[in-house]
Amino acid sequence: MQIHVINPNTTASMTDKIGACANRVAAEHTQIHVSQPDSGPVSIESHFDEAVSAVGVLEEIRRGEALGMDAYVIACFGDPGLLAARELTRAPVIGIAEAGFHLAALISTRFSVVTTLARTAIIAEHLLDQYGFRHNCRRVRATDLPVLELENPAGNAYQALLEECQRAREEDGIGAIVLGCGGMADLTERLTHDLQMPVIEGVSAAVKLAESLVSLGLGTSKHGDLAFPRPKPFSGRFADWGV
Amino acid sequence: MQIHVINPNTTASMTDKIGACANRVAAEHTQIHVSQPDSGPVSIESHFDEAVSAVGVLEEIRRGEALGMDAYVIACFGDPGLLAARELTRAPVIGIAEAGFHLAALISTRFSVVTTLARTAIIAEHLLDQYGFRHNCRRVRATDLPVLELENPAGNAYQALLEECQRAREEDGIGAIVLGCGGMADLTERLTHDLQMPVIEGVSAAVKLAESLVSLGLGTSKHGDLAFPRPKPFSGRFADWGV
Amino acid sequence: MQIHVINPNTTASMTDKIGACANRVAAEHTQIHVSQPDSGPVSIESHFDEAVSAVGVLEEIRRGEALGMDAYVIACFGDPGLLAARELTRAPVIGIAEAGFHLAALISTRFSVVTTLARTAIIAEHLLDQYGFRHNCRRVRATDLPVLELENPAGNAYQALLEECQRAREEDGIGAIVLGCGGMADLTERLTHDLQMPVIEGVSAAVKLAESLVSLGLGTSKHGDLAFPRPKPFSGRFADWGV
Amino acid sequence: MQIHVINPNTTASMTDKIGACANRVAAEHTQIHVSQPDSGPVSIESHFDEAVSAVGVLEEIRRGEALGMDAYVIACFGDPGLLAARELTRAPVIGIAEAGFHLAALISTRFSVVTTLARTAIIAEHLLDQYGFRHNCRRVRATDLPVLELENPAGNAYQALLEECQRAREEDGIGAIVLGCGGMADLTERLTHDLQMPVIEGVSAAVKLAESLVSLGLGTSKHGDLAFPRPKPFSGRFADWGV
Amino acid sequence: MQIHVINPNTTASMTDKIGACANRVAAEHTQIHVSQPDSGPVSIESHFDEAVSAVGVLEEIRRGEALGMDAYVIACFGDPGLLAARELTRAPVIGIAEAGFHLAALISTRFSVVTTLARTAIIAEHLLDQYGFRHNCRRVRATDLPVLELENPAGNAYQALLEECQRAREEDGIGAIVLGCGGMADLTERLTHDLQMPVIEGVSAAVKLAESLVSLGLGTSKHGDLAFPRPKPFSGRFADWGV
Amino acid sequence: MQIHVINPNTTASMTDKIGACANRVAAEHTQIHVSQPDSGPVSIESHFDEAVSAVGVLEEIRRGEALGMDAYVIACFGDPGLLAARELTRAPVIGIAEAGFHLAALISTRFSVVTTLARTAIIAEHLLDQYGFRHNCRRVRATDLPVLELENPAGNAYQALLEECQRAREEDGIGAIVLGCGGMADLTERLTHDLQMPVIEGVSAAVKLAESLVSLGLGTSKHGDLAFPRPKPFSGRFADWGV
Repeated sequence: MQIHVINPNTTASMTDKIGACANRVAAEHTQIHVSQPDSGPVSIESHFDEAVSAVGVLEEIRRGEALGMDAYVIACFGDPGLLAARELTRAPVIGIAEAGFHLAALISTRFSVVTTLARTAIIAEHLLDQYGFRHNCRRVRATDLPVLELENPAGNAYQALLEECQRAREEDGIGAIVLGCGGMADLTERLTHDLQMPVIEGVSAAVKLAESLVSLGLGTSKHGDLAFPRPKPFSGRFADWGV
Repeated sequence: MQIHVINPNTTASMTDKIGACANRVAAEHTQIHVSQPDSGPVSIESHFDEAVSAVGVLEEIRRGEALGMDAYVIACFGDPGLLAARELTRAPVIGIAEAGFHLAALISTRFSVVTTLARTAIIAEHLLDQYGFRHNCRRVRATDLPVLELENPAGNAYQALLEECQRAREEDGIGAIVLGCGGMADLTERLTHDLQMPVIEGVSAAVKLAESLVSLGLGTSKHGDLAFPRPKPFSGRFADWGV
Repeated sequence: MQIHVINPNTTASMTDKIGACANRVAAEHTQIHVSQPDSGPVSIESHFDEAVSAVGVLEEIRRGEALGMDAYVIACFGDPGLLAARELTRAPVIGIAEAGFHLAALISTRFSVVTTLARTAIIAEHLLDQYGFRHNCRRVRATDLPVLELENPAGNAYQALLEECQRAREEDGIGAIVLGCGGMADLTERLTHDLQMPVIEGVSAAVKLAESLVSLGLGTSKHGDLAFPRPKPFSGRFADWGV
Repeated sequence: MQIHVINPNTTASMTDKIGACANRVAAEHTQIHVSQPDSGPVSIESHFDEAVSAVGVLEEIRRGEALGMDAYVIACFGDPGLLAARELTRAPVIGIAEAGFHLAALISTRFSVVTTLARTAIIAEHLLDQYGFRHNCRRVRATDLPVLELENPAGNAYQALLEECQRAREEDGIGAIVLGCGGMADLTERLTHDLQMPVIEGVSAAVKLAESLVSLGLGTSKHGDLAFPRPKPFSGRFADWGV
Repeated sequence: MQIHVINPNTTASMTDKIGACANRVAAEHTQIHVSQPDSGPVSIESHFDEAVSAVGVLEEIRRGEALGMDAYVIACFGDPGLLAARELTRAPVIGIAEAGFHLAALISTRFSVVTTLARTAIIAEHLLDQYGFRHNCRRVRATDLPVLELENPAGNAYQALLEECQRAREEDGIGAIVLGCGGMADLTERLTHDLQMPVIEGVSAAVKLAESLVSLGLGTSKHGDLAFPRPKPFSGRFADWGV
Repeated sequence: MQIHVINPNTTASMTDKIGACANRVAAEHTQIHVSQPDSGPVSIESHFDEAVSAVGVLEEIRRGEALGMDAYVIACFGDPGLLAARELTRAPVIGIAEAGFHLAALISTRFSVVTTLARTAIIAEHLLDQYGFRHNCRRVRATDLPVLELENPAGNAYQALLEECQRAREEDGIGAIVLGCGGMADLTERLTHDLQMPVIEGVSAAVKLAESLVSLGLGTSKHGDLAFPRPKPFSGRFADWGV
């Protein structure tokens, strides 16, 4: 089975990290293809970054379709372009935010999200509402770390993240923590050990959900509102996306 | 006051229609600038079309900012790129779906939405949930007209739309109808007359809300999660959007 | 266009203040008529005050209809008698609480309400639920100032209000503040300046929404449950209200 | 124990009917006082009728307090003036709509409401939302009978009501029916027999809830937002309501 | 009227306490039968304890049916087996959690729950959601007292409970407190006196609701999804429960 | 990895069917242990059946723990005893209703549930609410087939089920169907082929979710409200469950 893991931003070190995380959990016969868009922001920390990155995600899906991918993972916590991506393929497409929420809901009654900048909390809140997990989430917490600070080996991102998770553990009445950024993928094991409670990271969660759907023969429904988009002319820089 | 009305698709006849509608309702000292993106789909009938069009909307906002616009209207019923657009400006940005919902809620206790293709109903439903109007809306109805059929003078779009509106009027227990496509902007008056009940069209609604906010000195809040995006490098086709 | 702005309480100084605020924002051709009921409480700080004041509001609407008003504003934050008032006219009727919520939702993702007495917070909460803005509002805060303390030039109402707004700004993760009392109408500009974030006051918001609806030819729907009340006998002090 | 049952409209035959119903279910030592306001509409079929009747209800509460009543029932399905009435007394105050909903929720998983005019359905819907019974109610059904038609011995109100209840029974997937008008109080037994399912009528339900609270020593909380209104001047026709 | 009050746990002292509380509030002609299961846990402090205790509750209901009971009360705050119990009888069955929530909603706009162990708060939250009282409840507070500590005359359970109630009173903006454990039944009067606000205890509340329903001729609906279970074979230790 | 799949009812043919379904989808190194309780009903078609079966489920979990199972599946659509089961183990425990809902939400925007008896629809509705999938589910449909009719080779269960699924496909505006009974596990492939849309069956879904969690090192959180139950005495037939 071939799973295409898409890092929606253009930072290669994060793409590598995400790929390593995906490979670590992939099943024996699963092949992980990891990529990042040619075009877009180096990190996704706003609705604007997210809207631009969605186009990059869709381009990667189109490439994946040409290569016959069996499933896709969108490895940014805002799940940019998720429903649009689903329209482009019969394969399952999983966002790491939804993946984290789904698995957290299976092992705890309540969880908190710990993310990067405070301004991105609203994105998580909107997803919790849209996906139906509003009541499962006690609180969306921010460390106020910029995403790329997670890429800085000299930084103290881990410490800041750990402290916010500890506050969540003490104050929120939760059973699990969902990490709110794909760039935290490599910290899960260490956090789990230091917190002694389940810490869920969306990239690995999404890979397993994708594997599960594929092995069940389930893919994005083409009956109804996720059917392939009606072919139509596109103009300008997107001319090649139309008919 | 200068209001930039953006038609997110690339069909000039629809841009003209939207501009005419905006001008018809604009206040004496309001100047309407209407535009469409250089790049994107000829119509927006899916999450995919919407995601691509959002980039076009953002480019138009950036142009508008260079011209010192006082407010923006996003004239597609899915409100593509709305929150991202708000991050790019201190000016108010109004989507026509939200505008229609807000005004409908002020003149009726319940309304129905009548839109084009059934597959786009889910987009309206998600917006109703996100904006908080789920309980105000009895039903989202589709005529199953493709958007561009509204541009076909030889077609029977009006008749099909009228009949669906009449069903809404008879069956839904509503006080108003919200038209679910910017391309219906020119049919409002005729529908209102034929239905003898309020019919709300988002372009005109959004123009008046934009004028209201500007005249009150209110614009998109730059305190908190709609602040300007953090400057950062963008690559590839979006290289010029970054620093 | 003639807009009748009704102060539901009987305190003339507040009526004047509300009228001044309405006139400050009214469009060139808008004429503001401001009035207060002959009968009712000097301030509205409870469900009881509100229920009594609703009758005064309805009397003012009936007078307004005789004068051919084009729109009405109910200038108390509990929106007393709003749906009843809508039944009495084809004109739009806007409450200042709903007006504040609607505009706040257009310029921020989340807002807080800052009101007077703690006991009135429940009224705001019920309106947030009924109107669908529960998720947009982070918190309803009370200063515990009696309404009429806002009329006391010697008092320190402004300072108390500013401090509560500052707490909202620091603690609530919001982009805007909605002032929870018509008597705060004259403090908006000063608060906006001191807080450096959008502060929304319902009287001015409602005047612009009323102007918007009128200029669009939209009024309270007479199709369905806001139709004119069925004529019937009324007795006693309300005998003249029936047939 | 003395329970004051208030018919918020001014139709004596309905007051008698409500009194008879209350007496039929009252406990041995319960004394029922039934009254109607001096002023107000002959029936309550709109938000307007309701707002006016609320003042009558409050006057009756004030009279009841002078007489030392132990509890109050507001016998109109819109529960007019309920929260305001609670502020005026330490005694429990029960509305017949809430009473019907509460008891229906204790004997079935889902119920439907069958009321009079379609235009009043919105009032029931708003109460279901405010009280938290939205999910317990499958449907609010209207017979389109004017309230006073229930007082017309020559009419076929019973038949129309029965047929709507039968449709509810067949189509709604419910376990109980809540009658949506105080004027239906005398039809409960017959409907229960003809439908062979529980039919709940609010007057009797409210009397038992009132008795329950009184016998438990529970009354309207005076701690917090239902405390007695702050004394203040009232003017005009309400001058005697103030200080 | 005979009401069977079932203590779902097997601690006789708690059964006695619950019985005493039920008798204290029972009407003149009401006979209280109190019992506890032969089998099950000594206290209910988890989903596991609750699931096991539900079987004991159902056995007691079956015994009650053999004795012709008129109503049942399930005297554990998790309402274990409530809907299953309702299927077994035409009589009303009331849980003490729902009883507490219903009465609290009739005398206050908002309440808080004060319970024993923090781990049981989730049970109360799920019930608040299922019953529709989520918005009426400001907070579910835990004292972290094990249930049986309430049976320990030498313990300081009362003090701990009082302090948590005082925090609720000061911090939560509420009008009433609902006690979250059947074992607190005997402390209600003292707490009410010490807190000077309504404190609602579910056993007494449930007894009065049961009396109310019986006296109205209302019982669990046998139309629809609470009908008697279809007879079928049961095996093993439950063999005698089947046909 | 060893997954214990528990059929909560006592019908061996259904246990075999469920086991076959689980084995069909299990990963290479996954060993499926399938069992049914010694005690309980032959089918689960009511809250009563469900409450009794929960005890059987808990016994099977206890046996599984003794055998060192890595995960558990509760193979009845009501997810009987789910939270209680989670308290008994560090392993993941997945119910087939939740599993079906979670996967359906990943491949469609809206789904419908097709179940057996109408009376069980309420169980599915309560789960949809508790799990947060209320908005994802358009409708819960019943075939009114008793569960065991699915075991009758001579019956026309398939035809009845297909026809209800076809109605769901045509009328509900959905992208997927969730089968509402473990006994339908063997019909999924055929239904998928005949309906040409995704049909999701909970047993296979739950096995893959269980495998996913185990392979990620995630299990039921023991921090917070799913921690192991406090040891305590149990009496009677459950004496061996206590200390």
